[in-house]
Amino acid sequence: MAGIPVAIIMGSQSDWATMRHAAEALDALGIPYDARIVSAHRTPDRLVAFAKGAKAAGFQVVIAGAGGAAHLPGMTAAMTPLPVFGVPVESKSLSGQDSLLSIVQMPAGIPVGTLAIGRAGAVNAALLAAAVLALHDEKLAERLDAWRQRQTDSVTERPAQEA
Amino acid sequence: MAGIPVAIIMGSQSDWATMRHAAEALDALGIPYDARIVSAHRTPDRLVAFAKGAKAAGFQVVIAGAGGAAHLPGMTAAMTPLPVFGVPVESKSLSGQDSLLSIVQMPAGIPVGTLAIGRAGAVNAALLAAAVLALHDEKLAERLDAWRQRQTDSVTERPAQEA
Amino acid sequence: MAGIPVAIIMGSQSDWATMRHAAEALDALGIPYDARIVSAHRTPDRLVAFAKGAKAAGFQVVIAGAGGAAHLPGMTAAMTPLPVFGVPVESKSLSGQDSLLSIVQMPAGIPVGTLAIGRAGAVNAALLAAAVLALHDEKLAERLDAWRQRQTDSVTERPAQEA
Amino acid sequence: MAGIPVAIIMGSQSDWATMRHAAEALDALGIPYDARIVSAHRTPDRLVAFAKGAKAAGFQVVIAGAGGAAHLPGMTAAMTPLPVFGVPVESKSLSGQDSLLSIVQMPAGIPVGTLAIGRAGAVNAALLAAAVLALHDEKLAERLDAWRQRQTDSVTERPAQEA
Amino acid sequence: MAGIPVAIIMGSQSDWATMRHAAEALDALGIPYDARIVSAHRTPDRLVAFAKGAKAAGFQVVIAGAGGAAHLPGMTAAMTPLPVFGVPVESKSLSGQDSLLSIVQMPAGIPVGTLAIGRAGAVNAALLAAAVLALHDEKLAERLDAWRQRQTDSVTERPAQEA
Amino acid sequence: MAGIPVAIIMGSQSDWATMRHAAEALDALGIPYDARIVSAHRTPDRLVAFAKGAKAAGFQVVIAGAGGAAHLPGMTAAMTPLPVFGVPVESKSLSGQDSLLSIVQMPAGIPVGTLAIGRAGAVNAALLAAAVLALHDEKLAERLDAWRQRQTDSVTERPAQEA
Amino acid sequence: MAGIPVAIIMGSQSDWATMRHAAEALDALGIPYDARIVSAHRTPDRLVAFAKGAKAAGFQVVIAGAGGAAHLPGMTAAMTPLPVFGVPVESKSLSGQDSLLSIVQMPAGIPVGTLAIGRAGAVNAALLAAAVLALHDEKLAERLDAWRQRQTDSVTERPAQEA
Amino acid sequence: MAGIPVAIIMGSQSDWATMRHAAEALDALGIPYDARIVSAHRTPDRLVAFAKGAKAAGFQVVIAGAGGAAHLPGMTAAMTPLPVFGVPVESKSLSGQDSLLSIVQMPAGIPVGTLAIGRAGAVNAALLAAAVLALHDEKLAERLDAWRQRQTDSVTERPAQEA
Repeated sequence: MAGIPVAIIMGSQSDWATMRHAAEALDALGIPYDARIVSAHRTPDRLVAFAKGAKAAGFQVVIAGAGGAAHLPGMTAAMTPLPVFGVPVESKSLSGQDSLLSIVQMPAGIPVGTLAIGRAGAVNAALLAAAVLALHDEKLAERLDAWRQRQTDSVTERPAQEA
Repeated sequence: MAGIPVAIIMGSQSDWATMRHAAEALDALGIPYDARIVSAHRTPDRLVAFAKGAKAAGFQVVIAGAGGAAHLPGMTAAMTPLPVFGVPVESKSLSGQDSLLSIVQMPAGIPVGTLAIGRAGAVNAALLAAAVLALHDEKLAERLDAWRQRQTDSVTERPAQEA
Repeated sequence: MAGIPVAIIMGSQSDWATMRHAAEALDALGIPYDARIVSAHRTPDRLVAFAKGAKAAGFQVVIAGAGGAAHLPGMTAAMTPLPVFGVPVESKSLSGQDSLLSIVQMPAGIPVGTLAIGRAGAVNAALLAAAVLALHDEKLAERLDAWRQRQTDSVTERPAQEA
Repeated sequence: MAGIPVAIIMGSQSDWATMRHAAEALDALGIPYDARIVSAHRTPDRLVAFAKGAKAAGFQVVIAGAGGAAHLPGMTAAMTPLPVFGVPVESKSLSGQDSLLSIVQMPAGIPVGTLAIGRAGAVNAALLAAAVLALHDEKLAERLDAWRQRQTDSVTERPAQEA
Repeated sequence: MAGIPVAIIMGSQSDWATMRHAAEALDALGIPYDARIVSAHRTPDRLVAFAKGAKAAGFQVVIAGAGGAAHLPGMTAAMTPLPVFGVPVESKSLSGQDSLLSIVQMPAGIPVGTLAIGRAGAVNAALLAAAVLALHDEKLAERLDAWRQRQTDSVTERPAQEA
Repeated sequence: MAGIPVAIIMGSQSDWATMRHAAEALDALGIPYDARIVSAHRTPDRLVAFAKGAKAAGFQVVIAGAGGAAHLPGMTAAMTPLPVFGVPVESKSLSGQDSLLSIVQMPAGIPVGTLAIGRAGAVNAALLAAAVLALHDEKLAERLDAWRQRQTDSVTERPAQEA
Repeated sequence: MAGIPVAIIMGSQSDWATMRHAAEALDALGIPYDARIVSAHRTPDRLVAFAKGAKAAGFQVVIAGAGGAAHLPGMTAAMTPLPVFGVPVESKSLSGQDSLLSIVQMPAGIPVGTLAIGRAGAVNAALLAAAVLALHDEKLAERLDAWRQRQTDSVTERPAQEA
Repeated sequence: MAGIPVAIIMGSQSDWATMRHAAEALDALGIPYDARIVSAHRTPDRLVAFAKGAKAAGFQVVIAGAGGAAHLPGMTAAMTPLPVFGVPVESKSLSGQDSLLSIVQMPAGIPVGTLAIGRAGAVNAALLAAAVLALHDEKLAERLDAWRQRQTDSVTERPAQEA
């Protein structure tokens, strides 16, 4: 698995509707990734195995998405020295406020870099991973710069009237 | 360790200021317990060892207190078939709202019976553990009834004027 | 009614859409239950009769679901020594935040083990009841272990692409 | 007890620090009252006896103050036809947000007229009770008008500089 | 207008979808009412005229519903000695949390008895008005008792399965 | 009173601790103002008189501060064509969240330009009033520019270590 | 561009669904405006150019709408002496609570007059801009008065029954 | 300045009380840093200069702390390709909830990896920066592993009784 720098993990199949936006952003930047389901609560052994082995497996950054009492990002961070970026998935009743607080309010000692709730957060987790990888990958840095420039260029001057 | 029915675990030394109220309530009811620090984030191996071994160690109920992005109760529940009761410890900035949501909003499949934020929750976790144990311990059921009756009797009819 | 270990009570017919998930989980685990409507506000006499008689009726655990200013779980807990598990039903305007706080923030002395808002909470109340009953029912303990193992096994390694 | 139109009830001695402001406002308006502690959770029998007997005892209005998962006002309203006014007492962790929602979010069918959190709410519960009683008590109506006029007159035109 | 004991006022036509439930409950109890639109912000003169004249017009209770920065109930209460009951109408972005706080958090001196957000609050404002009026109307007291009894009787023992 | 462009009004004496920061900022910019107490709830007549007469009195901008169910800014805006800037005063239980929502969530038709909760909001209300007045007062525009430049210059490059 | 007094800026095309209500209100009042997209995050250079040049371009008031972590109003205010009015656009997960706090909670020194979340806020930003411009434009003052009078007149006395 | 991998920036001197904990954590790990005050609102030119020049200055990671309507982290991220980690500084009225939402809820396209409110967040921003730098610095990776191991070892097994 060496050579795949980013792992995208998520707590359940239903999180993929959000997390696939991270995958698509990585695709757009030409960054290989491995997407898998790791449930902190339903598959704790898989969590331990994944987190403890993530660095040896060649990953450099972990993107973890989860909703509700979202323990996956923080528990992963507890068991790997790699940078972990957390994506709060929007929850049904509380709209992701529970997901956000469960991920971002980590105690001193174990950090999770947390992104916005939902799709925007998933996209940005990929971009943040790219920014980290680009520190030592000039080609990626150029692709990331170009991506950002295209984003800037895509902002029209005037709002289009709605049909 | 057989014969000690209740484990009280907490994420850090600072949580003891809250969780000792659970210990005191268990003392008052004559229920042996074992109190220990298990940090989900700083000592994940200890968490796994404790949770997976809790039933074999003879515990019947686990009381888990933690604050902020509180993952201890839920992660323990993920690795033991024993009933787990969670106590949200009051956090500095968000007054325990983060602790509460991180503990109570567990996904379907892994339950944590959650009590109130802070001291009241710690006391009540002990009382709930007692209610569970009393289902098969007539002596304890009597002590618990007596404790509740004393509580009822202690409520004065009239508010006392403050000096 | 002896032999039925779990009572599921709820504040109104509309809560059944949530609470039937508790019933289904108990069905899956082979645990008999009795489901009934007990409104703390509209049928307070029924509440008093139920709560005071719950232990004598042979119940061992009470699961209580209610929404809004949800008083049913706490008032039941005030009148029975049995463990009471509360399910905050999602409310219309406040998405169950009112239900959650009304149930979980019980004062010291009368505990309600509170689960997540909505369907997840209902399922988990059943699983927590099962965990309590399994302490003295080896067969149930085995069924619960098997249920949890199937849950673990059902988590696929890779997210399935959406059609 | 006939002739005492207002009952002030509260969940615990500690609520008196808030509820005595209702008592003082009633004193200022010359309205007799009876203040007592009725804990919904610790003294449910006292609650039932009080609420069911409140009308026969001659009360015309009930003021009920409680904090946290505050069930006293709503449960009283469930068992008396008298108007019930609720005062959310400020709670430790959540500043009375739990108290407010537990009191005000009553389901259709059983009303509690809810006032502000804390001291202001206690004062206003007394004034609202006075407004109700004044509908059929001209003398009280005059005293209430005079009280309000004095309140209006007490508002200075200019802010006083702080020393 | 003498003889109409209840005024229902609301901030805009759109509030009628909520407030008509108060009207229907009054209808069911045989209590005459007058429903009108009084916008604190768009028709402040109408507000002043209504509030200052409400008692002389023969009203005994004012029910006021409004949403968002809901000033109608509190401003009415500032200009009438009559009891005012406030109904927070559910707002678009904040689901009525703004409405609730704008109505309930009145300063000491001017009370508004506040009901739940939305339809339940509107129904309950009518029931609370009825409870006030019933203090001096035995016939109404009987109708209210009967209404409550029918409500109690309507609660079925068992939840009906959904088709 | 002609010649005094800014009115600072507040709901009570206690609000002056916050609103004096608006006065001080206006002093620093050499803008005359008139500070007075106008309670929407306790002195509604004074409110009507002030708001309806504010333009004729020569004011160009009104700064209104209030806390809790803060109706002063919105009701003033309802009765004057002048721009009204609202300052949510920090409230005791809810830290000004109620004040903020009561002021900012005005319905379409009557605007209140709302500033931050507390002291920062009071200072900024003064600065916003100055920005409005400076549109037609070159001297003031220069003073405001200079004030802003001094503010910029006062930001040191490096954080000073605390003693 | 001299002669266009109001600039409406927004963070993205999607904000136009909200901000066009500001445009429509300005149209109704006969106030010219210039609407453009300026993304603080995706086009920071455009933001700097716009904000620094706004006064020289002849604008007198800036209306800025943005959602989520809404930095556009505050950053514009940091780089122009003109009055800036902010409109929190409703966000997907948090319903505009994030937008509101990101705009209104500016530190002392740089004010943003903030309006309500969503459409109402957009309309009111236009009306507040009109109130500012009307201070030195008698014709506009008359149009604004007439607009407000029509608004007052449009409020019917009685709620219309829904079909 | 080449060779200093981490920039710590903050919005004001008062933020240093929080951000110095990031500095101390970097000191403990032997990572050079540059700490400076950059106010998005009061010194926007300094912000632009810093952010645009951060990469050329040799920085690899930016840690940005700010409170209230906290725009510094997001605006910095808008103008640098470097990874930016944001620390929500606890605010006076809203305890940092405004700071958190202003930082974390960035729109898709410009990421800020957000840490917890206050001191814990500052420490963790440093640890996350270290994790990023350690990807290409074996010596640092070893120091970080040792630091984490010491942290693990420092967690005592049993809670110490309070004196």
